[in-house]
Amino acid sequence: MKKHIYIYSPSSAVRDKASFRRGIKRLKALGHEVEVDEAALAKYQRFAGDDATRLAAITRAAASGADVALITRGGYGLTRILPAIDYKAVAKSIAKGTQFVGLSDFTALQTALLAKTGAITWAGPALGEDFGTLQTPDDIMAACFDDLISGQGEGAGWQLPRLPALDAIHSVAARPHNQGSTSQFLIKNAPLWGGNLAVLASLIGTPYFPKPDVIKGGILFVEDVGEHPYRVERFLTHLLHAGVLAGQKAIVLGQFSNYKLVPGYDSGFNFGAVAARLQGQVKARVLTGLPFGHVATKVMLPVGARVTLAVDSRDALIFWGHQH
Amino acid sequence: MKKHIYIYSPSSAVRDKASFRRGIKRLKALGHEVEVDEAALAKYQRFAGDDATRLAAITRAAASGADVALITRGGYGLTRILPAIDYKAVAKSIAKGTQFVGLSDFTALQTALLAKTGAITWAGPALGEDFGTLQTPDDIMAACFDDLISGQGEGAGWQLPRLPALDAIHSVAARPHNQGSTSQFLIKNAPLWGGNLAVLASLIGTPYFPKPDVIKGGILFVEDVGEHPYRVERFLTHLLHAGVLAGQKAIVLGQFSNYKLVPGYDSGFNFGAVAARLQGQVKARVLTGLPFGHVATKVMLPVGARVTLAVDSRDALIFWGHQH
Repeated sequence: MKKHIYIYSPSSAVRDKASFRRGIKRLKALGHEVEVDEAALAKYQRFAGDDATRLAAITRAAASGADVALITRGGYGLTRILPAIDYKAVAKSIAKGTQFVGLSDFTALQTALLAKTGAITWAGPALGEDFGTLQTPDDIMAACFDDLISGQGEGAGWQLPRLPALDAIHSVAARPHNQGSTSQFLIKNAPLWGGNLAVLASLIGTPYFPKPDVIKGGILFVEDVGEHPYRVERFLTHLLHAGVLAGQKAIVLGQFSNYKLVPGYDSGFNFGAVAARLQGQVKARVLTGLPFGHVATKVMLPVGARVTLAVDSRDALIFWGHQH
Repeated sequence: MKKHIYIYSPSSAVRDKASFRRGIKRLKALGHEVEVDEAALAKYQRFAGDDATRLAAITRAAASGADVALITRGGYGLTRILPAIDYKAVAKSIAKGTQFVGLSDFTALQTALLAKTGAITWAGPALGEDFGTLQTPDDIMAACFDDLISGQGEGAGWQLPRLPALDAIHSVAARPHNQGSTSQFLIKNAPLWGGNLAVLASLIGTPYFPKPDVIKGGILFVEDVGEHPYRVERFLTHLLHAGVLAGQKAIVLGQFSNYKLVPGYDSGFNFGAVAARLQGQVKARVLTGLPFGHVATKVMLPVGARVTLAVDSRDALIFWGHQH
């Protein structure tokens, strides 16, 4: 099914132009019409053009009439232009059928848009790293994207991993939900929100963070890259102390990748310990292993949509039916 | 003047025990009575003992009757125990004359204590890195500490540096105050607050962040280590978007150390660019070069005290008279 995909750069400048070109080529090979924003390869300092250029790119993406507006990459750049984004224009284009897709720094736009308009965006791939990879693009990522594009996407399932590292933690009574061997539960009609943890935490207490009623009873998913577990915990503790986690039904931890533990010093303070401690602090069910983050295998998730989370033993499913 | 110094570990476990011992030895050589908390060298995971152990250490420091309660080191550990700290006990011991001194992760305790009680603590050295250094302890650090201990400390002065990197930034109109060559101003009777930027930002929107009236018309100082300028800017933007900077009279940037720019990519997005952009966003005067942070040469600053900031050309002085 031929679709119109608009490629733009709201955050950092594209560094890997070969990936950029490969990504476009692959999307075209799938039969899509790929429209590249005039500033997609712009560069000012480390940004994809100065602030005005990136704001204009977002506005052009919203005006493109495309089926999908896909970021070239994340990085950094959206938080600082949040006050100037035309949220109504983006929400209007979403209402007309343009799906905004991205991750990482893009979390800032997604979260602010949810706070300002309630519009639904997609946590999903970026052009360069996902479609432009030197390897074959990941099957699951590609299938989820195809589901979105064809209007078939209805859910994302995964296997809850065991967390063997947890077994070494003697003094932590609480365990993330999936540490138990069997159980079954259903959370219905809950707002799904989240994304990159550092970016999300950087919005707490600002007008770009969803008001309590928007995320009440929600399912929060988070991921991050290059953050030591102590920093992941500090971000989670920030959400906790800000009162954001108290009203959540589930906290779904995605992929936390590319960090280094300090052998002989961290002594069991690892990702599992952070997940376990979190479960000890909240009533929400803490799940791990969501295939989303700075990794090749990633599902797509509708940020701001009402979803159902179903868990049966080690099988987890976030289900939303048709969103469009 | 012989003083009683209580050494304790509220955050990360001491890794460098040689520095720990050297620091104690040096303080003793200065004639002080050094009392070491029973859990100063405790270790649980990466922490100086589990949460209960560190909470008890803080309580013991507060009950010590010492002239100074000095942390062994920063790291990570205070944010997660903020809800359980006995702030009243710490404030009471401060009222009785114990000066709490530290930096880095200690910012969490200082900021929360200010928010909860208004008690004044000192941004200053840590035992290991400052007194236990393999080199001779820094003259200025040692002199400031001696001033505190002898009750002579009345102010901290420094030379405002030029920011040559700024000259390369063509599109940034605003310049931090000290970019101009001459000027003179005085900010009187303003609450001084701040510390480690990442820790401070991690408290926004929580009960551990000072209420607007406490920091109104204030002088905010910040420092950080190992954070790329884009992350520094994200933290500053967080404070900005949370409305915290609007009411400040001055923002004093301390030392931002031990980060790496990406040659050929950051392209002028450096610390100077971050300072300049900040100045463009706030009415507060942005100053740089404060000798405080994760560096050897550091002054001591009374967090929560009312101070005067005087600038005359390139000379800056934060002055508080006697605090005790």
